[in-house]
Amino acid sequence: MANRKAKSTIREFPLIQRLARRFAREAPGLVQGIGDDAAVVEPASRIWWHVTTDLLAEGIHFDFNSASPRSVGYRAAMANLSDLAAMGATPRYMVVSVAIPKTLKSSHIVGIYSGMMKACRRDRVALIGGDTSASKAGLFLNITLLGTTPTRKALFRHGAQVGDLIYVTGTLGDSLAGLRLLMPTHKTYRSSKSRIVLSRSHQRFLIDRHFHPTARVAEGLWLNRERLATSAIDLSDGLSGDLRHLCESSRVGAEIEPEKLPISAACRAYGKAAGSSPVQLALTGGEDYELLFTAAPGSRAKIERQAHARGYRVTCIGTIRSKRFGIRMSSGGNSRRLPITSYEHFH
Amino acid sequence: MANRKAKSTIREFPLIQRLARRFAREAPGLVQGIGDDAAVVEPASRIWWHVTTDLLAEGIHFDFNSASPRSVGYRAAMANLSDLAAMGATPRYMVVSVAIPKTLKSSHIVGIYSGMMKACRRDRVALIGGDTSASKAGLFLNITLLGTTPTRKALFRHGAQVGDLIYVTGTLGDSLAGLRLLMPTHKTYRSSKSRIVLSRSHQRFLIDRHFHPTARVAEGLWLNRERLATSAIDLSDGLSGDLRHLCESSRVGAEIEPEKLPISAACRAYGKAAGSSPVQLALTGGEDYELLFTAAPGSRAKIERQAHARGYRVTCIGTIRSKRFGIRMSSGGNSRRLPITSYEHFH
Repeated sequence: MANRKAKSTIREFPLIQRLARRFAREAPGLVQGIGDDAAVVEPASRIWWHVTTDLLAEGIHFDFNSASPRSVGYRAAMANLSDLAAMGATPRYMVVSVAIPKTLKSSHIVGIYSGMMKACRRDRVALIGGDTSASKAGLFLNITLLGTTPTRKALFRHGAQVGDLIYVTGTLGDSLAGLRLLMPTHKTYRSSKSRIVLSRSHQRFLIDRHFHPTARVAEGLWLNRERLATSAIDLSDGLSGDLRHLCESSRVGAEIEPEKLPISAACRAYGKAAGSSPVQLALTGGEDYELLFTAAPGSRAKIERQAHARGYRVTCIGTIRSKRFGIRMSSGGNSRRLPITSYEHFH
Repeated sequence: MANRKAKSTIREFPLIQRLARRFAREAPGLVQGIGDDAAVVEPASRIWWHVTTDLLAEGIHFDFNSASPRSVGYRAAMANLSDLAAMGATPRYMVVSVAIPKTLKSSHIVGIYSGMMKACRRDRVALIGGDTSASKAGLFLNITLLGTTPTRKALFRHGAQVGDLIYVTGTLGDSLAGLRLLMPTHKTYRSSKSRIVLSRSHQRFLIDRHFHPTARVAEGLWLNRERLATSAIDLSDGLSGDLRHLCESSRVGAEIEPEKLPISAACRAYGKAAGSSPVQLALTGGEDYELLFTAAPGSRAKIERQAHARGYRVTCIGTIRSKRFGIRMSSGGNSRRLPITSYEHFH
């Protein structure tokens, strides 16, 4: 919110002020938006505030050679929306900091902000403040998002119990498959054979899932409101990594059935074309921004009935086990430890 | 709050998790700190939340050649605390994002966090979340700070009325003088004459004011609680720039009396030694993190009596005029427009 400027003032800084004012809207509870030392918010009583932040760096999380500025902004906002979805929270206010290299075109800045605001529009999130800096190398984008739930009603990572069912929303691995399609140097995909096997519509689907993921805000709100989930996390690192986070927080183990993992037809086709295992894509692919949640076995019928009625896709992929059991995949009588993997972003 | 990692994982990332856990403390109203998709806060009823954010970039706002990691962290936190001070708010929760180049030593990270937490300790601000990224070039540090006031009680920029008195806390220009002392290439200071004229204690004072500014949180809370100020802003860009921001928000002009500007003995001595005008240092020097506020003339006696009793330094430096009057300096019957200047950070 400070108006601090580096001497090496960048032409785009007034542009950002204009953009911020253009996107700043009246919002319920907002007392003072952009233009003072801090934004001011008057919350309803009996609520919890949820605060999440994500920092994205050019050359680490994105690259303007393969991603449009609009999709960079969109995905940055979605990453934060997804964190709030995993808390079962209603997203409300956004604060954006951006460090801008001199070489960046102003059209890129407009694109980034347009993308962010596009992602926010569905949930009516208001841009209430931010800061701007020059950058000697590369763009940095930091978003802080504030959301609310009723008091004592939120989806934490730490509530999973032994015997709970493990669910995911949507399909897994699409974003990673889309990312690989975008890499011209990816060997397995450069073979002429694979080009023939994977249809254009499958390619479009996977690339769109990479550039335009959908935070499962409605699903998180539903699970929280109906008290259907015992714990939840969003899939930003990939199932393998994020299931581990959830199990560590809940001090439990987990047993996953790989044949139950929801994998799209496009991802299956990509796996076939590229010679990759779709299960491996589903386990290690990050940035799907689906929700991973656990539920008491007694909630199964209600979850599946309500999800169907609402048009939400949820799939039971396994069961919470004791901590001693570890985190394992079981298939056809065989069981093996889930490998520890970390998601590869663009790099 | 996401656990997202770049594949080029940096050794320091686990270090940051350890630091975050070390500094994360129980805090009033904190339901869930670091370790979930979002931090969760249960506010008292009838409060306003104040949200501010600051992004600092290596090579733009600081340089590890002239500043210790500890002072970088300290000043970053102070910049945010100062924004909340200018709202009259109690600072409560901090969220920190940091992008780390591979070359950075882990001792630097420890230093930055130690400095941030030192700045937060006085006001018992709790670190509740953050994010970490690799950086291809230079360190980036983004802090978001949340604070509270009672509802309908805050110091906005937009409340100044024609006829109000203009006050500042503390002394002005010290931070800029200290910054210039740190620049070995600064011509006016390299003359052997100046080295003789400026005492070591003055040098120490000015450099300390640059590296360890004090956000006027107590003064802001006092002005807000007692409803003594009609508007306020913190001096991060320098008086000349920040007075302009306040006047624009309030749609008024201002008349400053330069001889009234509070200038420390050290800053005066520096001005003499370096051949710089202390008034110019006071007008253009940013990062003093003093408060600039306005008050009705009828509050004068109360402000000055209470400030004296509490040991706060406040100085009346001018009067709010009509918008048409503009922003002017008047001295000995002469009046001239206040030049538009922007603060030079480290560069």
